[in-house]
Amino acid sequence: MPLDNFSIIESTLREGEQFSTATFNTTQKQHIAGMLDQFGVELIEMTSPCASPQSEADIRNVVGMGLNARILTHVRCNREDVLRALDTGVGGIDIVIGTSQQLMTHSHGKDIAQIIDLALDVITFTREQAPDIMLRFSTEDSFRSRESDLYRVYLAVADTEVVDRLGVADTVGVATPNQVWTLVHHLVRLTHLDIEFHGHNDSGCAIANACAALEAGATHIDTTILGIGERNGITPLGGLIARLYTLDRGYVSKYRLPLLPELDALIAEYCDIGVPFNNVITGASAFIHKAGIHAKAVLADPSTYEVLRPEDFGLTREIAIGHRLTGWNTIRDRAQTLGLSIPDDVIKDVTQVVKQRADTAPLTIEEIDALLFEATPQVFAPLHDIEGLGVRV
Amino acid sequence: MPLDNFSIIESTLREGEQFSTATFNTTQKQHIAGMLDQFGVELIEMTSPCASPQSEADIRNVVGMGLNARILTHVRCNREDVLRALDTGVGGIDIVIGTSQQLMTHSHGKDIAQIIDLALDVITFTREQAPDIMLRFSTEDSFRSRESDLYRVYLAVADTEVVDRLGVADTVGVATPNQVWTLVHHLVRLTHLDIEFHGHNDSGCAIANACAALEAGATHIDTTILGIGERNGITPLGGLIARLYTLDRGYVSKYRLPLLPELDALIAEYCDIGVPFNNVITGASAFIHKAGIHAKAVLADPSTYEVLRPEDFGLTREIAIGHRLTGWNTIRDRAQTLGLSIPDDVIKDVTQVVKQRADTAPLTIEEIDALLFEATPQVFAPLHDIEGLGVRV
Repeated sequence: MPLDNFSIIESTLREGEQFSTATFNTTQKQHIAGMLDQFGVELIEMTSPCASPQSEADIRNVVGMGLNARILTHVRCNREDVLRALDTGVGGIDIVIGTSQQLMTHSHGKDIAQIIDLALDVITFTREQAPDIMLRFSTEDSFRSRESDLYRVYLAVADTEVVDRLGVADTVGVATPNQVWTLVHHLVRLTHLDIEFHGHNDSGCAIANACAALEAGATHIDTTILGIGERNGITPLGGLIARLYTLDRGYVSKYRLPLLPELDALIAEYCDIGVPFNNVITGASAFIHKAGIHAKAVLADPSTYEVLRPEDFGLTREIAIGHRLTGWNTIRDRAQTLGLSIPDDVIKDVTQVVKQRADTAPLTIEEIDALLFEATPQVFAPLHDIEGLGVRV
Repeated sequence: MPLDNFSIIESTLREGEQFSTATFNTTQKQHIAGMLDQFGVELIEMTSPCASPQSEADIRNVVGMGLNARILTHVRCNREDVLRALDTGVGGIDIVIGTSQQLMTHSHGKDIAQIIDLALDVITFTREQAPDIMLRFSTEDSFRSRESDLYRVYLAVADTEVVDRLGVADTVGVATPNQVWTLVHHLVRLTHLDIEFHGHNDSGCAIANACAALEAGATHIDTTILGIGERNGITPLGGLIARLYTLDRGYVSKYRLPLLPELDALIAEYCDIGVPFNNVITGASAFIHKAGIHAKAVLADPSTYEVLRPEDFGLTREIAIGHRLTGWNTIRDRAQTLGLSIPDDVIKDVTQVVKQRADTAPLTIEEIDALLFEATPQVFAPLHDIEGLGVRV
């Protein structure tokens, strides 16, 4: 799979701004852009300068930071928007126009022939104005557009040889990985242009769809931190990283992975939302092992039940211990941590006591330790600190 | 796609119990089971009776409720566990054993030949004990197992003709939709047995993988409410519903969809976690439209930017209005809601004022209304109640 040659278009400062509680001020935008640049994303997409006066000023502010990441902005398919975008000094322009029947009717009112005419006019105009700018043309709501309409538009645009990249957008979160693979595959085959995928998460497939796009030869994936965006958002940066890491850690070795928890926490703070409990990589439970069978195997070798190494993200794993699903291997491990020498049959008896008591309510680590001390023929002083409700290993 | 003939194995009371903060008491388990039954899930899987005394008692409690859903329990591959399970009166037994090198080494210590011998012994024994019970055999960590090992085990098990269903488990959340499709496809082709898929979410593909399994002919999908389970969990019930609904609403018409928000809220309460902000269907932002272009189209026809109808889940959509990305169509709609008659050019001026002020901080609906009243040539009393920060339509 050709997954080692792709770039991230990080759109927290564009798509992310469309999340219900996102209102980034200039300082916050600069902080986000700076951290994304440190993380290593190749491109940062910002809200159109036409959205508001501060949106325009902030593009200039971020362009002025001199980051390694190239700054893009996202505009409607018309000359005026392009001119305002060019004036900000961005390194790339992402042009978009809706091609589904729904959007043709309720958004801009143009038919496919008019869309093609407009697209050719605007991209040619843009290239004339800015010979060196990175230029992308994307349809919107691609997966509810007629396939034949899509090819008419894309192939006409590609034929001009003025755009660098075609964009495919699952604007409403309806595509399946197979559908994404098929469309991207044909666009790669027919145009040889770079292909970008932008996928919403309304039906929970934004990460899988991004991966399918890369498998089909896409070169650019749109993400936002925590996946924030319109409605329930798009492919999250951390989700894309996790998906690629589990296929081959080398695919994501170019990014500074330990910055990911900080990025997720930053956006959670700015947007006044929690990091979801089940968030890939940075959710509170992502590296907690609970059932006895799992805990036993993880104590022997973490890779038994982990395809992501928490230490690669600056995180730690935890073995939950004081619950009804606990096993004697976990209890024995705790005894060993405490420096206690207890025969296995006694450990098994203690485990039964723990399971029975935990049937009513989970035990604290102190309660388990007390049981272990009681069960020890000769009590030694604990060798290690006792921490929290779980055992960080 | 043959997606209209599947059953949900709802495992909140088994896999879900393996979530770090899940400790359901008897009353809670009965409440969860009862609500899942009302929702319409076909099967409910519960923790092994071998886990703890209360686990065993609770299976009997839930079996005693006389639900329409069949009650299953999930046991290790040995005769003792099966006998304890049968004694509880369950309607089905889910047997599992690890087949990846990692699990063979660190979990049970058996090689493939020994696994086959044990599996054949245990399933034959189970069928002798309980001729009418629903019997499933599953490998564990199927997608890190050698493919040849999997077929040796599955085909030997299928050949006995004593199991009803084969299980495929992405225990560590590493599979891609393509891999799931391929394995399920071959098992369907080779055995003609029912096929169950159980998928973890470590790399964010649990929903897409479940859908790929169904596309390949799987008959049963494991879910939990909110996706709770070991680490960051498995395919969420709501996520599976959303994915299938967007393909064809008819696929999920057999379930009582408006109960979904209540189910998600219940588990969030029991586990002391929030419903993730980005949760499919029930996340706080799932039906909030913000950018002006989106809001305009949704006001004309919600399907423009919605592939799920919130009203089908007992929910409402919201148009966010007082932010820098707002558009004049949204402001005009608000004026109309207030019964104000304002010319379009004045509405556009008000919109520019809103955008400029919102560049500093979002405006409240009261502030926007004040601007609209100020801009109205003749002020009428508002015809409707003014609510919150957004406009529920």
